[in-house]
Parts: sequence; C-alpha cells; structure tokens
Amino acid sequence: MRHSTTRRNVLRGTAATAALAVTAAATTGAAHAVPQGAGPNIGILLYDGYSLLDPTGPAEVLSRLPDATVTMIAEKRGAVRTDTGDVAVVAERSIAEVDRLDVLVVPGAGDRGTVGAMNNEALLRWIRQIHRHTQWTTSVCTGSIVLAAAGLLDGRQATTYWASAEYLRSTFDVTYLPQRYVRSGKIITAAGVSAGLDMALYLASLIADDDTAKAIQLAVEYDPQPPFDSGNAADASPQLKERALQLLAASQV
Amino acid sequence: MRHSTTRRNVLRGTAATAALAVTAAATTGAAHAVPQGAGPNIGILLYDGYSLLDPTGPAEVLSRLPDATVTMIAEKRGAVRTDTGDVAVVAERSIAEVDRLDVLVVPGAGDRGTVGAMNNEALLRWIRQIHRHTQWTTSVCTGSIVLAAAGLLDGRQATTYWASAEYLRSTFDVTYLPQRYVRSGKIITAAGVSAGLDMALYLASLIADDDTAKAIQLAVEYDPQPPFDSGNAADASPQLKERALQLLAASQV
Repeated sequence: MRHSTTRRNVLRGTAATAALAVTAAATTGAAHAVPQGAGPNIGILLYDGYSLLDPTGPAEVLSRLPDATVTMIAEKRGAVRTDTGDVAVVAERSIAEVDRLDVLVVPGAGDRGTVGAMNNEALLRWIRQIHRHTQWTTSVCTGSIVLAAAGLLDGRQATTYWASAEYLRSTFDVTYLPQRYVRSGKIITAAGVSAGLDMALYLASLIADDDTAKAIQLAVEYDPQPPFDSGNAADASPQLKERALQLLAASQV
Repeated sequence: MRHSTTRRNVLRGTAATAALAVTAAATTGAAHAVPQGAGPNIGILLYDGYSLLDPTGPAEVLSRLPDATVTMIAEKRGAVRTDTGDVAVVAERSIAEVDRLDVLVVPGAGDRGTVGAMNNEALLRWIRQIHRHTQWTTSVCTGSIVLAAAGLLDGRQATTYWASAEYLRSTFDVTYLPQRYVRSGKIITAAGVSAGLDMALYLASLIADDDTAKAIQLAVEYDPQPPFDSGNAADASPQLKERALQLLAASQV
C-alpha cells in the first residue's frame, strides 16, 4: 500500500497514547464484570423504544473519564431496539446483575417507549434501588419522566424534552425549568436527545474537574456548528413544532 | 398509578403522531430487509473500534428523514464493539448483503480501529463498490481516512479529526480543510466525532430540504449549550490537546 498505516501515524502524540494503551486495556478489560474499577462505574439503562442518541451521546463523553467503565444495562441482556426499530445497542448486563452504580443515566424515548418504561414496575423498582447509592442519577429527554414515575423527582426542579414539558409539569410534583440541563441535589436531568451531550460534559466536570471535561470536549471535537438555528422550541413556530413531532412519530414504530 | 400514561399525554400534538404511527410502522417494518423503501436507504458502516457517537449521531438525525431506513452494516452481522470495548451496536446486515445504498456513512475510530479498517481490503472494496451508486458518501472523524484509503478522496478537499489532519494531508492526495464538514461533489466528510451531528443536518437539508432539516434539529432538540468552549483544536493549548489525546488513548482498548 502506498500509505503507511503504523499506529504512530494516524494520531499525533501517539507516544503518549501507546504508553497509556496498556492501562486502557487493563481498565476496559474489567468493564464486562459487574461494574467495578478505579474510576466511576457508569450504567446506562436501555429499554425498548429509547432514542439512540440519548444513551450514546453521554456514553461517548463519559467513557473518556479516567478509568471509567460504561455499561449498557436493560431488563434482560442482549440487543435493545430504538424507537425507529432500525437500530439496536447491546445491553451487556441485566438489571438483576447490577445493584450498585456511581452514575445512572436514564435515556428518553418516544411515546411508546416512555409509557412502557413508566409502567414497568421492575424497571422503576431497580431505578429507585440504584438511586439510593449513586453519586449521580441522571436522565436525558423523557428519561426525566421515567425518573418522575419512579418517584425520584417529587418536589424537585427538572427539565425534559420540550414537547413533554407540559406532561411532566401537570402529571408530577415537579417544577419544570426550560434549561439545557437542571441539577437538583444529585439528580441531573437534561433536555431533549442531544442535550445529553451537554449534560454529560457538565457531569464530567463534577466527577473529575473542569480541565478534564474541557479535554473530553476537545477529544470528541464538540465545537457545535449546526447549519441551522432551529433547535430551541422557545423560538420555534407552531408549524415547525408540529412538523418536528410529525417527523418523530413517522420515524417511530 | 396516580399519573396517566396514555400515549396522548406524553407528547403534545399526539393526534398527528397517532395517525402517522401507522405509516411509520409500515416503513420501519421494511428496514430489516436489505434497504429498500420510499425514502433514502441509509447505511452506516460499523467496524471494530469505531467511536460510538460517530455512527449514532448521524443515525439519530437521518432516521427522522421521511420514510428513511437506517441500517447498521458490518463485515459480518452481529454486535460490533466500540474503541472502548464497553459498548456494542448491532450490525443488522453484512457487507455481502448490501450492494446498493442511497447514503453511506463511514464513522471514525481510534488508532487501532482506523488502521484496521484501512488495511481491510474487503471493507475498502465494498466501500468503493457502494460509492459508485450512492447519492451521498459521507464520513465522520477518521472515517475520512478510511475513505481516503479506499481511494475515494484522491484530489479532493476533505476534513477529519483534528489530531489526524496532518496524517490525512501527508499520506493522501487530499487537501485538508479545517471545517466542521466539507462537501466535495457527492462526498461529505465531517470533523471529529460530534461533527457528525452537524454534517447529518446539512445532509438532511440536501436529501430533503431546509425546512425538514430544521424540523429534525428541533425534533432532536439540538440547541447546543456545552458548559465549556474547548471543542475547537485551533483554540486549544498544546497541553489541552495532549490531555485530550491521553484521555482518548486511556479509554480505548
């Protein structure tokens, strides 16, 4: 081949990376046991119909924390499908196999998935049990509605997906704040889908420090430059909101 | 339960969503055949050691395009692990099962995964074959180096992960542009990891139209508000860059 493909070449500063790769291998080798390691044990709950970016955005960011282990967890081990039915992420552990986490992340879902999780008493029981000992219990999008259904948000401030704010506010004893993420004690809720990235960087700064979170932001080159400026529901027309909800519904099974 | 969990309540505008859910089910039901449908057939290539957000960010965005099917594809069907070894996404189809795509997305990876893909002639051959008939061939992060290894970027302008820019420029006949995403004919390359979200929204506007892309941005509430402003390598100190690369290396197996 005309191009060199030695590891030193693909990324600069590979001397350091090569040295650290050994530690990395040792660390991540332990990640398939029930979470245990030098760093934070981060568990992300998957359930049928979640939105793909909700768990994967925070996983990408939090997996870069020193010695962190990230474990996808579901009611049963195995592939768990997203709201579109097209894509599946593997749950490495069942909820029965995990009784302690430093960090719990509960993603959101479409109507079907959110309602399903809200009515899944085994899931809600596990969330309550894990929450007792977490350092941080977090959610993305309608994951805050699942936390609320578990009773974790009673009397708290929280955020959620823009289109679910009225439901959260009117159904639970929760004060909705239209913010990207909201911290209430050790619970951090994020707004819709992509807000999990911002929440995860904030969480990284709390778990480690600002410099580490800033380095992670650079590591995932998170310098957002969307071609449009239409992501804030507060600035959206009723027509755009309706179109957004229609596209979501049409993409979901 | 004290809270109602009927589907109409969780999201507003659910009358529309209920009506469209039927269409959605029909559409996504077809997604598990070799991609074919009324909308764009989008294939995302998974290979050992990819970075989780690279395929999942674009998948989240592009799956909201009307009648789109998103299929995760790999050399073999089944779970494909990320660079950290902790997480796996399921490849629904093998490359042998897919010979036509409207849109190809090639994600990036750490050193090991990128070099592995660059040296995988079967994968490169498939990429070249699929590219002949795509409407759009795209990459995220070091996925552009995989496209370059396949010979698709010869004489073109492209972008890649910030730390891989020098390698791309010095190894291939490619003009590196330090942009969030770069279009060269029907090839669109994105910068690192999270840049796939911005690229996917741009791509959505090309496949559909600006209004649809704006509605998708609202649907995933992509109103980025990172707690820090450290995602642009051009503004980063040598120390921050080194720290970012060390965190990456330490998190990878």
